[in-house]
This record gives sequence, structure tokens and C-alpha cells, in this order.
Amino acid sequence: MTTKLFRNARIVTPQDPGAPLRGADQGKVREIEGGALLCRHGLVDRVGEEAEVREAAKGTEIHEEVDLGGRCVIPGFVDPHTHLCFAARREEEFRLRLEGTPYLEILRRGGGILSSVRSVRSASDEELFETTLGNAMSALEHGTTTVEVKSGYGLDTETELRMLRVIDRLRRETPLDVAATFMGGHAVAEDYRDRPDQFVDLLCGEMIPAVAEQGIARFCDVFCEEGVFSVDQSRRILLAARAAGLELKIHADEVHDLGGAGLAAELGTVSAEHLLAASEPNLEAMAEAGVIAALLPATAYSLRKPYAPGRRMVELGVPVALATDCNPGSCFCESMPFVFGLGVMHMGFSLEEALVASTLNAAYAIGLGHRVGSLDPGKSADFLVLDGSTPAILAYHAGVNPVAEVYKRAEWVA
Amino acid sequence: MTTKLFRNARIVTPQDPGAPLRGADQGKVREIEGGALLCRHGLVDRVGEEAEVREAAKGTEIHEEVDLGGRCVIPGFVDPHTHLCFAARREEEFRLRLEGTPYLEILRRGGGILSSVRSVRSASDEELFETTLGNAMSALEHGTTTVEVKSGYGLDTETELRMLRVIDRLRRETPLDVAATFMGGHAVAEDYRDRPDQFVDLLCGEMIPAVAEQGIARFCDVFCEEGVFSVDQSRRILLAARAAGLELKIHADEVHDLGGAGLAAELGTVSAEHLLAASEPNLEAMAEAGVIAALLPATAYSLRKPYAPGRRMVELGVPVALATDCNPGSCFCESMPFVFGLGVMHMGFSLEEALVASTLNAAYAIGLGHRVGSLDPGKSADFLVLDGSTPAILAYHAGVNPVAEVYKRAEWVA
Ligand SMILES: [Zn+2]
Ligand SMILES: [Zn+2]
Repeated sequence: MTTKLFRNARIVTPQDPGAPLRGADQGKVREIEGGALLCRHGLVDRVGEEAEVREAAKGTEIHEEVDLGGRCVIPGFVDPHTHLCFAARREEEFRLRLEGTPYLEILRRGGGILSSVRSVRSASDEELFETTLGNAMSALEHGTTTVEVKSGYGLDTETELRMLRVIDRLRRETPLDVAATFMGGHAVAEDYRDRPDQFVDLLCGEMIPAVAEQGIARFCDVFCEEGVFSVDQSRRILLAARAAGLELKIHADEVHDLGGAGLAAELGTVSAEHLLAASEPNLEAMAEAGVIAALLPATAYSLRKPYAPGRRMVELGVPVALATDCNPGSCFCESMPFVFGLGVMHMGFSLEEALVASTLNAAYAIGLGHRVGSLDPGKSADFLVLDGSTPAILAYHAGVNPVAEVYKRAEWVA
Repeated sequence: MTTKLFRNARIVTPQDPGAPLRGADQGKVREIEGGALLCRHGLVDRVGEEAEVREAAKGTEIHEEVDLGGRCVIPGFVDPHTHLCFAARREEEFRLRLEGTPYLEILRRGGGILSSVRSVRSASDEELFETTLGNAMSALEHGTTTVEVKSGYGLDTETELRMLRVIDRLRRETPLDVAATFMGGHAVAEDYRDRPDQFVDLLCGEMIPAVAEQGIARFCDVFCEEGVFSVDQSRRILLAARAAGLELKIHADEVHDLGGAGLAAELGTVSAEHLLAASEPNLEAMAEAGVIAALLPATAYSLRKPYAPGRRMVELGVPVALATDCNPGSCFCESMPFVFGLGVMHMGFSLEEALVASTLNAAYAIGLGHRVGSLDPGKSADFLVLDGSTPAILAYHAGVNPVAEVYKRAEWVA
């Protein structure tokens, strides 16, 4: 490990107050012209104007100096919501969906989430890892340096554990920081279609304890939606997970206002996801409870749905994060720049709000706010050099990846 | 030049009937499973199922065989409408626009199209070429193998000619096929603000003859819009261009239904562009006259405007093409995959209609339908290998560049 000085950068970063930013502070960032970043042992040591950083570094041997050419530097993206561990794409199903084929007909033809379950169950560990790795490396090239990945295409104890081991291997064999989420409650397994409560029993009685015992997931997530898990079933699952030592997330009110956002507030989950249909009182309760809203505009784009009311959430004081939701069904997108662009163009976020949402707040949404998400001393030196002079380039250069270089722990990785 | 066989591809291509495809045929493509492409001297020699192509090639020495791994192959994209020859980005102006700053205020602060005119006038030939080249190479990486580029940031004879020479250099020094369009009628030059008709005189009397004499543009385009050039002024400019031997294009009815689409039909221009506000009778007249609609959904995206009624145009029998409109102001996007995705997600085109719009019809929109835009014998062997098994990947893999390999005249170029 060496000491490195990255200089001649226009640094734009949230400053971490020890909690996610929200309300009027959702877009609070620091801008440093002629900025420099002193990194030691892969961590940020000092950040500020070059003269100031050099002064502070006096007496320290600097092993390497890198001129960033005056380009914009931001923290590495944190993608706090993905299902990028899967075995097979669903390109053909996408075409059917475009043509207006009803979802039930798609299911009848072998599509839908259960087709991903079948392909993951029949894939070897190596096959599953290869596809997952490809998705993760593409995310890295688009600037994601920390990623959350969910299980949930196993729906039986063995396959769910297998997915979590593949996700753990991603953590060990790539530069990415990875947060693993157990999501056995992603759908009701086919065998349990007519007895969903017994599937909830299986989740609570067998899967969650097994996952907790192996210590390979930090979070438990559940898909609370009409036709999937009710609010009561979701509560059972999440309480069992909490009892087993897992932290909580919930896919809430994506299609119907079922009350998932309210359950998130009631339980004080770390985050609630989607929220396209969440009611205003429940959003207020989330703000009260400090639940982070993880918004997924690329899914709305890919499903041709309206976008979640992100602007309103900021007004209500809900801390907002942005994520890709990368998955083979509703949203095959691992690009945080694209998500950033949609947040700005379609959800009404300012550039600064979108930046905080895709870095610091996203880090808090996966319990890593103390380690990543901003360029503050002591945090991991994860940063992006953009092909532009401000974060505006992420929306201005539409449909293109404006991430020129990716550094993880002060090492160039993409 | 060698003879090459590209095999093991799922080829999807329009078949050129000698004219743009429209109406019920807008989405007419041929799909070949286990397809092969025999290329000679950079041209397509045979295309079809591998056995059939091999049979036909008997006795021909094949110098190189390339296995494309079962991936999808489509013709190279033709981008028939760009302003990618510019000297400076307008990233700061984009931020102002996002924040709701009125256009007049942006102009007052030195933004808008006239800022591009100032930067092009003050750039050296080399500077102008470097920026243009960067934009064009990025387009190539996103699958564009033939591109139209307009002048129009000079607005005086000398600078317009200089832009056209830079565009010509792009043709000579890159693998791209380039169609050059003179667009001195892009805006009224600052000096002529109070006497626009004299600027039209300058265009007709000096610029157009000079461009025609040098033979460095094939097309003449004009921005027919409220506050820019009226229908009458546009007609004068286009008739002068036609008299000088140039072919015609027109930016029509982008913001107001001024009647530009009707003028396109009246003059039988090769294409009409934008058309967000065009009236139905004028679209019918375009269909009657065979004018190609060049639609620019990335501009609508970047300006947060509604999309042009592309579906309706297909119903009316207008041949539809898609283009990026890549420019530093309203739409900094050189990615045809992104445009393809917007066409499918937001304009209601089928995958096949979008494919025809971005290849064959786009080629006809710049008078190159006989040479590029489909994989037919005798045409340039320009094709893309997609990271997917069908053209659906271009919309399914949202916000990401799914072009894995780009071949121009049967040579790998990106
Ligand atoms: Zn999800
Ligand atoms: Zn244009």
C-alpha cells in the first residue's frame, strides 16, 4: 500500500454528516476547484484544494502523483438494489412484453420470475458465477464501486444459499464492495402456489435460520405486493429475519398501494424500494422513521410506467437513494449513469440531489455509509473520473457512459 | 482485399427493395438462423444460411473465416442527422436549462446556438477536427458505420466552408462513410439579427454557390421554425440550393406547426426532421411525396418534450428513419442504441420497425440506400455483432451499449 496524490481535479462530493442527507440537504455537496485527494492504504486521507492538501501532507512521502487533467471527480457510485446474480437473460420475454402480451400469457409460455428460478436452479455454480461476474464487471465500467446483490431466484434453501455463496465469491474475486441480501421472499415457489403460508413457514423456519447461521447475508428483503406477499406475510418474514440478526429491506408499493411503505416505517427497515404507488401518509411515516427510499427509475423506463414521486419524497423529508434494480425481467440495466440521467430528467431531482442519491444515501441504504459514498477522510478512496467538468455530464451526455476512469481503494480498476 | 466468410450468426436485416420501407412494410426484415455472410472486396457477396452460402461460394478461395458465436448480426447503424462537428460542449448551459432558466436568459449569459458559433469560429481547424473526431469515434463504438454531419455553426462563408472541410477530413481519416450537409441556415447570424432577409440573401447569393462550387456538401438543410427561418425564407434557401445542385433536407415543425412538413412535401425534399408538431394533412402530403421522416427521440428526451408521433407516421405511410441529432445544445447523444431504445419504448415502434428506421431508411434519408443500410449483395459489408441473440437486446439492455463488435467494409473497426 502506497500513499498517492490525485491532483488537478474538480472534486464534487457529499460530505458525510453521519447519516443520509434529506429534505433541503438532499443535494448538499462540496465542490472543490483545483482539488486534490491524498490517499493512504486505499483510504482517503485528505481532500481539498491542492495547496492545502500538500501543506497538510508535508513530511509524508508521496509515492505516486496522478494528474487528473482538470476533469470532474465524484465518489464511486453505490448501487443499493440489484438482482444481478442470475443465470439467463430473458430477451425473448422482453419482446413479448413489448408486443403487449399479458403477463399471464408470458407465464404460460415459461417466462416471468419463475423462469429465472428454473435457470438458476439448473445452472452450475460456475455458470451462475460467470453471468453474475459479467453483469458486475459491466456495472464497474459504468462507475459502480459498491453494489448490493440479492438472492431470490432459488426459492429453496439449497439454491438460495448457493446464490449467496456466488454473491460472496463476487466480493472476494472482484474489486467491488458487495452487500448481500437474502430474498427468498421474492416470489412464492411454484410448489407452494396453492399454500403460500407454508412457503412463509419455510422462509421463517428453515431458510432464514440457515442463511443467518452461515453469515453470508447482511439484509433480508421481501416482495410485498398483491399476488406475492401480503403485508402480514411480509411482516412475519421480516420479523423472523430481524430475530435472526439480519437487517431489513422491503419491495413496497410498486404496483398497488398495499401499505408496504407503512410496514417499512413500522419496522424501521433500512430502506424501502420502488414506492411508485405509496400513499402520502405512509411516505410521511417513512420520513419520520428515517427509512431510505431506494428509487428505481430504470425499471419504470423499461416497463413504460410512470416514475415514483421522488421530488415529493424529498419535500417530505424522506432520504432518497437511486439504484438500477438490475435484473433479467423488468429491468436489464446495470448503468448508474443512465439511472442518474433518468432521476434528473424524469424524477425532477437536481444534479446534486441525484449525486447524493447515487453515492452517500445509496451507501446508507446498504449500511455502508461509514465506509463509502463520499470522499471524506477515513473512507475508502473509491472515485470516478468523469469525461466532463461537472456531474451534469452524467445527464447531459445522454445514453452514453461518461465514466472515464474508475478507482477503487485508490487503485485504477476500469 | 480478401474474401471473408462470417459464420454462425443470427442475421437480421432489411432487404432493400430499392426504396425506403414504409407503412405495413416499415418493419419488414429477414431473419436467418445459422446465417453466414460472404464478403469480397469489402462488399457483401452472399448472405443466407451457411450451407447455402458455402454451396454458392464453391470454387472461391476463402481467405478468412470468422465464427461469430451465434450472436445477432445486424447492418451497421446509419445516423442520418447529426451536428457532431462542433468545437465545445455546453455542459453548463445544460445545468441552467435543467434549473428552468428561460432560453432568453441563457442567450443573455452567452449560451444557445450562437455560443457554438463563437467557439467554432475561434477554434483552429485542428481543434475543431479533434472534437469532431472524438464524437465520431464514440458513435462508431456505438455501432454507427455511416453518418450524416451538418455544418451550421459557422454562419459565415469562410467558417461554413471550414466546417465542411473538417467533415470531409472525417470521411478521409476514419472508417466511417460520411454524408456532408451544408446548414448555413441553422440560425440567423448575430450581425444580421435585425435584417434576417439579408442573411437569406447571403445564404443564397454567396454561401450556397461557394459550397456548390467546392463540391463538399451533398445536402442543404434549413431550420424552419418561429424565430429562425419562416416557410417563405426556407423555400428561398432550399430552391437556391437545388438550383446549385444540392439535395434538400429541412428541420420542420419541431416546436410550432409552421408548415415545414408541407414545404418538405411541396419541394420533395429527401427528408424532413423532428416533426413533433407537424399537422396530419402535412404528414399525409409527405407520405404522398415520399419524404422520409427523420425522427430524433433523444432530443425530445434531453429537452423533456413529448415524442414525435412516429407510430402515426407509419400508419400514414411516411417512411420513418431514426437519428441521434447529436449536438452540443439540445441533445448531446451519439448513441444509436439509445435512440433505438427510445423509439421502441416511447414512440411505439416494433423492434423491426426501429431496426429498419435506423439502418435502411436512414440510409435512404441521406441518399445512400444503394450502398449501405442492409446486408444485400453488392452493398458495403457494414455490420454489427450484438451482445445478444436478437435486436431486442438494443432496447432490453437499457442504457448500455450492446454493440459488441463493429465491422466496416468487412474489416473489424471497433
Ligand atoms: Zn428489486
Ligand atoms: Zn438538427
